[in-house]
Amino acid sequence: MTTIQDIANTLGISKGTVSKALNGASDISETLQKQVLETAVELGYTKLRRQKSEKKKLCIIIENMEYKEIHHFGYEIILGFRQIAEPAGFQVDIIDMNEDIQSSVSYDVFMLQNDYIGAFVLGFTPKDPWMKDFETSRTPAVLYDNYVITNPSIAYVAIDNNEGMELAVSHLKSLGHNKIGYLSHDLKSQIMQVRYNAFFNALRHHDIEENSDYTGCSYYITQCMNQHLPRLLNLGVTGIICSHDLIANAAMIQCQQLGYKVPEDISIIGFDDLPICAYTSPPITTIRQERIQLGKSGYYALDSLMNQVSIGTILLHAKLVVRQSTGEAAKRE
Amino acid sequence: MTTIQDIANTLGISKGTVSKALNGASDISETLQKQVLETAVELGYTKLRRQKSEKKKLCIIIENMEYKEIHHFGYEIILGFRQIAEPAGFQVDIIDMNEDIQSSVSYDVFMLQNDYIGAFVLGFTPKDPWMKDFETSRTPAVLYDNYVITNPSIAYVAIDNNEGMELAVSHLKSLGHNKIGYLSHDLKSQIMQVRYNAFFNALRHHDIEENSDYTGCSYYITQCMNQHLPRLLNLGVTGIICSHDLIANAAMIQCQQLGYKVPEDISIIGFDDLPICAYTSPPITTIRQERIQLGKSGYYALDSLMNQVSIGTILLHAKLVVRQSTGEAAKRE
Repeated sequence: MTTIQDIANTLGISKGTVSKALNGASDISETLQKQVLETAVELGYTKLRRQKSEKKKLCIIIENMEYKEIHHFGYEIILGFRQIAEPAGFQVDIIDMNEDIQSSVSYDVFMLQNDYIGAFVLGFTPKDPWMKDFETSRTPAVLYDNYVITNPSIAYVAIDNNEGMELAVSHLKSLGHNKIGYLSHDLKSQIMQVRYNAFFNALRHHDIEENSDYTGCSYYITQCMNQHLPRLLNLGVTGIICSHDLIANAAMIQCQQLGYKVPEDISIIGFDDLPICAYTSPPITTIRQERIQLGKSGYYALDSLMNQVSIGTILLHAKLVVRQSTGEAAKRE
Repeated sequence: MTTIQDIANTLGISKGTVSKALNGASDISETLQKQVLETAVELGYTKLRRQKSEKKKLCIIIENMEYKEIHHFGYEIILGFRQIAEPAGFQVDIIDMNEDIQSSVSYDVFMLQNDYIGAFVLGFTPKDPWMKDFETSRTPAVLYDNYVITNPSIAYVAIDNNEGMELAVSHLKSLGHNKIGYLSHDLKSQIMQVRYNAFFNALRHHDIEENSDYTGCSYYITQCMNQHLPRLLNLGVTGIICSHDLIANAAMIQCQQLGYKVPEDISIIGFDDLPICAYTSPPITTIRQERIQLGKSGYYALDSLMNQVSIGTILLHAKLVVRQSTGEAAKRE
């Protein structure tokens, strides 16, 4: 195990200086502190042993996801994680992240500086600077909905999107739908790509026509509604699966404005089961992500990484929640 | 929760008869016993409550996989499972399975009859009769290397084969290989398909020529060696990745008999890290499946299913083990 002495030897400075730098003493220059921290990470130094008397610290690093209110998507994920991590003796801090912080310090150095021994990372996108760090970082991290290949310190937790799309397509097929459309946010995020491919896998599995004309993907929901939705309706799709609930809700409203009844003329399915789904008009049939369980699985995966059981992926079963936005396929000319 | 009374009501017989049938009393006809058991399963009856004083029982159902000796593939998987299940208070039985047993009784009825509340299933192939049962069964089961979609009572545990192939291709690429072949058992089993697709994903990721002519798949290893291997060598591949170690070992021997030196003329990579890999000539570079960890993950997944945390998939990180069967790409004309 790497010691403070090893860091001192590598840099040709005293143990005392290394120790001060690791603890952020004000009489050590910023440049030297940075050098010490980076060397510490490079050599695989961890502060683990220094925490015998204190609680060990984990953090949930969160970005692009609301979590403070009970109806926010992140609320229950965090709750599930804490429900197991805290009784197991960990202190869990929540860190609001942004790109500026990520650009100023590497993930490993951030974790070392703040005494965190593992992180659960929520809401990141491929353009987050730390996504690059995660390819080679050494401090255990579990990423929700982001997959990094071949780094044994990183795990990935998500819902089984293939299963989710399978349930959605199979539900529509059982109602007689044979021409099914798909509306999505643009495909730049990993999760949107995964769901898009999962949609086509499910169509194939059910021998339903695969036609990319029946799909529409846009960064802006309004664009999706103005350009793609009318096109899909004109092509005669009788059901539309949406990459997430907000698009499903917008699509439902737009269909109604265009004079289509939901579900009599067109069935709509969402994805995620956001709390609003039960209160829209009509309530939205959707694929549920069990958020408490996602949080718990995040802890299981992190615990396993910290204990050298090298879990790389945990996928939760998806669940179809049938409400009133889906019905028998409309007879179209 | 379903009671014995519910079963009695459904069948219009007495509670005592149901109870006798569930316990296999000899004065109940086989037909009636079967009817009672199937109704019990259909109504979701479990014997859980009857076991307060006894140890709860799990089973490992195993087929097509040796496990009795320390060098057998299944040995450590079973060990890893027991290392956590037994301290957690479970009795773990090992059941040697065959198709006859599966044809004579459904999976759920088998489990109910024998008081098992969960199973870890090793070595099954798509033609096993219970693979069909697993699509709708209700007793928790974790399948190693077999994936069943949309049954919330079933989970899937495996190594991350995509990651394994990525590591293999990336290793060969770093040694200068640009024309990489693939030898495999036939593609009828799920795992062989997954690895085959993973091989092409990895080539794509590394911008290496994808050409199905460079692959060969046969049910019999000898066929693979006599038909495909010479063809691949003639096409000028400098490295060959094999779907599993036994093919890698056979390929190495066959190459040597054909006058090719391993790794000077041709590099060979296996998959699994069977114990023999360290003792072949030369020792085989391969992708390791951490078998103890697979066993432990099997228990984690089963435990989560039994506790209503609906984990569907756990994938372990793959690990490249570099030995002497791989080296710098040979210069070919």
